[in-house]
Amino acid sequence: MATFGDIGVAAAINIISALVFLIAFAILRLQPVNDRVYFPKWYIKGLRTSRTTSGAFVKKFVNLDYRSYIKFLNWVPEALTMPESELIDHAGLDSAVYLRIYLLGLKIFVPIFLLTWAILIPVNWTNNTLERSKENFSQIDKLSISNIPHGSPRHGNLTYDYVDYLFWAHVAMAYVVTIWTCFMLKKEYETIANMRFYFLQSEKPRADQFTVLVKNVPRDDDETLSETVQHFFLVNHHDNYLTHQVVCNANKLAKLVKKKQKKQNWLDYYQIKFSKNPLKRPTMKTGFHGFWGAKVDAIEYHEAEIEKLSNEIAEERKNVVNNPKAIMPAAFVSFKTRWGAAVCAQTQQARNPTLWLTDWAPEPRDVYWKNLAIPYVSLTIRKVLMGVAFFFLTFFFMIPITFVQSLANIEGIEKAVPFLKPIIDVKPIKSLIQGFLPGIMLKIFLMLLPRLLMLMSKFEGYFSISRLERRSASRYYLFKIVNVFLGSIITGAAFEQLNTFLHQSANRIPETIGIAIPMKATFFITYIMVDGWSGTAGEILRLKALIIYHLKNLFLVKTERDREKAMNPGSIGFNTGEPQIQFYFLIGLVYAVVTPLLIPFILVFFCLAFVIYRHQIINVYNPKYESRAAFWPDVHGRVITALIISQILLMGLLSTKHAVASTPVLLALPILTIGFHIYCKGRFEPAFTRYPLQEAMNKDTLDQVREPNLKGNLKGYLEKAYLHPVFKDEDYEDHYDDGSLVMPTKRRARRNTPSTSRTGGGLGPLLPEIILEEHKP
Amino acid sequence: MATFGDIGVAAAINIISALVFLIAFAILRLQPVNDRVYFPKWYIKGLRTSRTTSGAFVKKFVNLDYRSYIKFLNWVPEALTMPESELIDHAGLDSAVYLRIYLLGLKIFVPIFLLTWAILIPVNWTNNTLERSKENFSQIDKLSISNIPHGSPRHGNLTYDYVDYLFWAHVAMAYVVTIWTCFMLKKEYETIANMRFYFLQSEKPRADQFTVLVKNVPRDDDETLSETVQHFFLVNHHDNYLTHQVVCNANKLAKLVKKKQKKQNWLDYYQIKFSKNPLKRPTMKTGFHGFWGAKVDAIEYHEAEIEKLSNEIAEERKNVVNNPKAIMPAAFVSFKTRWGAAVCAQTQQARNPTLWLTDWAPEPRDVYWKNLAIPYVSLTIRKVLMGVAFFFLTFFFMIPITFVQSLANIEGIEKAVPFLKPIIDVKPIKSLIQGFLPGIMLKIFLMLLPRLLMLMSKFEGYFSISRLERRSASRYYLFKIVNVFLGSIITGAAFEQLNTFLHQSANRIPETIGIAIPMKATFFITYIMVDGWSGTAGEILRLKALIIYHLKNLFLVKTERDREKAMNPGSIGFNTGEPQIQFYFLIGLVYAVVTPLLIPFILVFFCLAFVIYRHQIINVYNPKYESRAAFWPDVHGRVITALIISQILLMGLLSTKHAVASTPVLLALPILTIGFHIYCKGRFEPAFTRYPLQEAMNKDTLDQVREPNLKGNLKGYLEKAYLHPVFKDEDYEDHYDDGSLVMPTKRRARRNTPSTSRTGGGLGPLLPEIILEEHKP
Repeated sequence: MATFGDIGVAAAINIISALVFLIAFAILRLQPVNDRVYFPKWYIKGLRTSRTTSGAFVKKFVNLDYRSYIKFLNWVPEALTMPESELIDHAGLDSAVYLRIYLLGLKIFVPIFLLTWAILIPVNWTNNTLERSKENFSQIDKLSISNIPHGSPRHGNLTYDYVDYLFWAHVAMAYVVTIWTCFMLKKEYETIANMRFYFLQSEKPRADQFTVLVKNVPRDDDETLSETVQHFFLVNHHDNYLTHQVVCNANKLAKLVKKKQKKQNWLDYYQIKFSKNPLKRPTMKTGFHGFWGAKVDAIEYHEAEIEKLSNEIAEERKNVVNNPKAIMPAAFVSFKTRWGAAVCAQTQQARNPTLWLTDWAPEPRDVYWKNLAIPYVSLTIRKVLMGVAFFFLTFFFMIPITFVQSLANIEGIEKAVPFLKPIIDVKPIKSLIQGFLPGIMLKIFLMLLPRLLMLMSKFEGYFSISRLERRSASRYYLFKIVNVFLGSIITGAAFEQLNTFLHQSANRIPETIGIAIPMKATFFITYIMVDGWSGTAGEILRLKALIIYHLKNLFLVKTERDREKAMNPGSIGFNTGEPQIQFYFLIGLVYAVVTPLLIPFILVFFCLAFVIYRHQIINVYNPKYESRAAFWPDVHGRVITALIISQILLMGLLSTKHAVASTPVLLALPILTIGFHIYCKGRFEPAFTRYPLQEAMNKDTLDQVREPNLKGNLKGYLEKAYLHPVFKDEDYEDHYDDGSLVMPTKRRARRNTPSTSRTGGGLGPLLPEIILEEHKP
Repeated sequence: MATFGDIGVAAAINIISALVFLIAFAILRLQPVNDRVYFPKWYIKGLRTSRTTSGAFVKKFVNLDYRSYIKFLNWVPEALTMPESELIDHAGLDSAVYLRIYLLGLKIFVPIFLLTWAILIPVNWTNNTLERSKENFSQIDKLSISNIPHGSPRHGNLTYDYVDYLFWAHVAMAYVVTIWTCFMLKKEYETIANMRFYFLQSEKPRADQFTVLVKNVPRDDDETLSETVQHFFLVNHHDNYLTHQVVCNANKLAKLVKKKQKKQNWLDYYQIKFSKNPLKRPTMKTGFHGFWGAKVDAIEYHEAEIEKLSNEIAEERKNVVNNPKAIMPAAFVSFKTRWGAAVCAQTQQARNPTLWLTDWAPEPRDVYWKNLAIPYVSLTIRKVLMGVAFFFLTFFFMIPITFVQSLANIEGIEKAVPFLKPIIDVKPIKSLIQGFLPGIMLKIFLMLLPRLLMLMSKFEGYFSISRLERRSASRYYLFKIVNVFLGSIITGAAFEQLNTFLHQSANRIPETIGIAIPMKATFFITYIMVDGWSGTAGEILRLKALIIYHLKNLFLVKTERDREKAMNPGSIGFNTGEPQIQFYFLIGLVYAVVTPLLIPFILVFFCLAFVIYRHQIINVYNPKYESRAAFWPDVHGRVITALIISQILLMGLLSTKHAVASTPVLLALPILTIGFHIYCKGRFEPAFTRYPLQEAMNKDTLDQVREPNLKGNLKGYLEKAYLHPVFKDEDYEDHYDDGSLVMPTKRRARRNTPSTSRTGGGLGPLLPEIILEEHKP
């Protein structure tokens, strides 16, 4: 039973660590040497460049201007001042909408906070159940629902009525919470659907607006796949069909190209080395990583290797293009108008609904090429398999971990590697190992979990990166509900819970959990502070990226291109980030009525995270794709899930308080919530999955006026838009192509200009003034 | 515990009653006076007419040809000889596919019958658990799984292994049953999807192929609704849009027209009366049903009334057409090609997905006009409301019935109507009332249930009769599972079961039911014989239709048109018939492994029902609509449900036999079945909900060749096709219009020809020869 004092100490620790992170960030970000770690987004956009040529040597690494240190929190207003419309231009709709999740949290929980503190806290406090019970209790429990007397009718009618009256306050508050949350959810869904339409309407013409991904094209012995596709669409969409590109299995080619790139990089490195020191031709060893083997002239060797690889690539490229087996049964089909593409994407083409599957094409950079060729039956089997696998992963993941833990004890290690015995037997090392070992496996597993879930999604065959991330996110959320939320409430491994639940009657389950909920409030408060406060503050420091960047810079970076690669701006990481936010929604909604004390801690998280992630989105993250907020239905659905869980648990909790009369009243809540969800699904979800014909027609008509010469160029653009990246551009890994048709090479051109020539240019109105100020020489 | 003897007696009784029905039918159907009861389908098709003018007077009513009585079962080969393709021409695809449900039953259960009798019956019989247990048991139980010894490991390893081996036979059989059922289901789904496509492809051009129903058209203050629709589709489907019809709220008009029809009928009656007896002008009274009031000349009175009504109708008609409030926000939009209609039906039109909702239009006669104007939000609310209502109906319907029953006892009646006391107190009457009263409320409720479910579906807002029937069918099936299947196994009202289940752990529920299953085998055998054998045989007799027809003929029929109305051919009644068949699938699958003895009883039902319903479909039923087998996904889904229920119950049963080892093996079955269902849903279901563009384009191209003049006439046809029936044709109640565009008036013309002129003509090649033979004068 934690007291206010305990929580105060924990809060102090976490506030201090958060502050340490923030101050460290404030200092580190001002050093020019870290510029690429803290402002990579601007580099990628070409609005900021390495300052390798100007100023004193020291100034290149350290910021000596003391004035800039005084305003160490001035990044906060910076992050907040950029208006949303500009943010959408700058970082894309996905990022802007992602930030709105935090805002949604504030919008939902601020009024709930005010109301519950005004009404429920006094009601809870003025009772004395806990004092009468003479059990151990803390002041925190006095503020929770635990302090309301049990309403047993056996105490006589008077007490019963009184008790009922008290719980009615909680029941009414549950209604208020539900109605308010639903109201905000609906408003937000509406806003974001409109934002999406506005974004689609104001976008430049882009390849994906005109293109449909066709999967499971049937093979024909008499025609090539390309001919089959062409004939089919010429017949069935003869007014609209424009062109198409078949998908090649270019995985081997991509590997070769990557290898060539590496060699090219080494060649550049040796050439720079040679140009700096023309007297000594660089040499190298041909063996494993240059450690042994014959000594050769490095430049000549690499030139020969690149030559060889170039030939191989040309060979393989010919093979991929000509070999019918390398053509996968999928194609990107482009249409003359958006209307034509919208029609094709939304309709069934062939009698057999597993052939000629059409879907709105993802952006070229969003395509996950490997999954384009999975046949239909295999997809069903994969889904079922992964469903089963995920079930076992969620409920039984503790079993192998426990098993490995039992092996990895001191004796086990000593047996396995007897020569380490003398070291292990040293007392402090021994206790260190014994202290760490049990937890370490679990930590490793939890770190690897998002990757594992992503692998599972990939195995399921989704064909765009955005879909993969969304799928992983929902699984990660489920995993968190079972193993973190339920797992913390009912201590015990998930499979033990499962066992309990299977052997318990259906309406006992919410009770079991409900009873435990008020007692765990302090645990979750601590959790919020550690994970939500310190963790989020830590995010802005980018410690891992910082260290890796400097390590790479020291040891690996040979050329400018390498430096750009080492920058690694990262992205929001929807698959891990969103489930984390959702977890706070869940805790917040569950405790809103039970222990309102917890709400302000969540509010702090939402505020802090909003500011920090807004900063990161503006300055750091480089989104891998633009899905135009396609993830919002998932976000909405998970808040609804949290709401329903909170309602059921409240029912369970109150039924243990003998306030049985409240159950039917509360029963209406989940039913209403589900009704609301069905309504929203019908009303708003299509905006995120389909392109209405009216919108498409509108946009087509607008384009005719705005870009009259587009029609002529369209075919030329679209013919190349969905080439496998390996064909398009050999250094495809870091290319920045947003699929826009009108200026398809503008940004690339700027980036490929030698760095000296671009320091002056390119600072558009997008760049906040503050950045200009900071980097005055 | 029923013995073989008991079952034999029950079988004898039911076989005899079935035979009585069949013989009665064989005799009654040969009487010309019953011709319209037993062959209405041919009358409606215009291939058979009343024989009022030829032959002797007696022969008009009674068949005196003794030879025809000898071959009293010759309707069976008649019913079976019509090939399926001809049956589709004659009665439509719906009816032909409906019969395939019975065939599916035979295809699934005949091999299961052979296998289980060859393997499980000997295994069960050669054990002696029941003999050793010294409890009461019957020979039937000896043939069921109950006779296999309990596999308790406590009996020592040898017994355990032996026992396990025995249950493996049952487990393996469960796998065989599942795999075979799924295999047959898949084959059947494929066949029927192909039949549907073939039917669509070979149909004559029909209005619904070119038309899309648009609901929730937004109101515009500056335009009429018709203009709004036209503008929208001219803009967004400018290449394809042809014409449209708005939907009017013509409910009041329909009422007036009906009233006029009645008066017209009376006028006809009086005119015939007058023409037969020209000396006496018929008179009538103007008051309530002609019982009192002033005496007037009937012909004049009716002529005046009709005149008045005609004016009112004209007024109302003008009102409906011109008053914008009478225009409902829905329209039938027709396109130039099927391709255009298919595109529009499958795509989202407007940004707001609750406006401009498009859906493939039902046939004109299938439209449920009243539901076309329900707004979107209301639909969601209605669905949630009906979901809740259905839940309570299913689980708590016994409560009001029990309540009314408790009121309706002898004392209650005596109190309410004291003057009846002397009659009630007579002993035989009293015992009769006491015997009947408790059951009678339940019987009335169960008779009214399908209507109640239909009302619920109507309230939910489905806009075609076929959808209404499908919806009612699924609810009726659920009701039957809970209240008949589970209700018979665990005796006790449904809400008591619910209570038990809620207070029981999740994995105890299948056990509870599993234990009871083998004991209830004899009950279900009796059920099959009463409901499936006698009930089905009774269907062919059409006793209710026969009596009502003759009563109407005696008292109400005044004109030829009245006689046609009195004929009432009825239809299959998908909403009650299909759940009944499904119930046999459920019982069959559940008992296939547990008590194989039950299977042949089900086989007899399927055979008998197939023959009888085939006869009825050929000769009697007149389908209200043609949905082109759109119900098959429901049929498939319910067999899958039955399969999963059977698997879970077998798991429960075996777990009580201590054959715990079998549980994980059996657990794979429902998972596989669900996987199979997901696969089938993706692979076949779209064939029943969407019109693939390739098919539409094909058919469009074919039409250009086959009906070159169609294109010119199309607009004229389509402009009138979806008028509210009341505008189209004043006696709309019995019109026979299948929506065909090419010969829209051919059949009507034939039917309206005076009866004398059409006895000779119209006997197409469709008419089986046997009917020609029977009716030689």
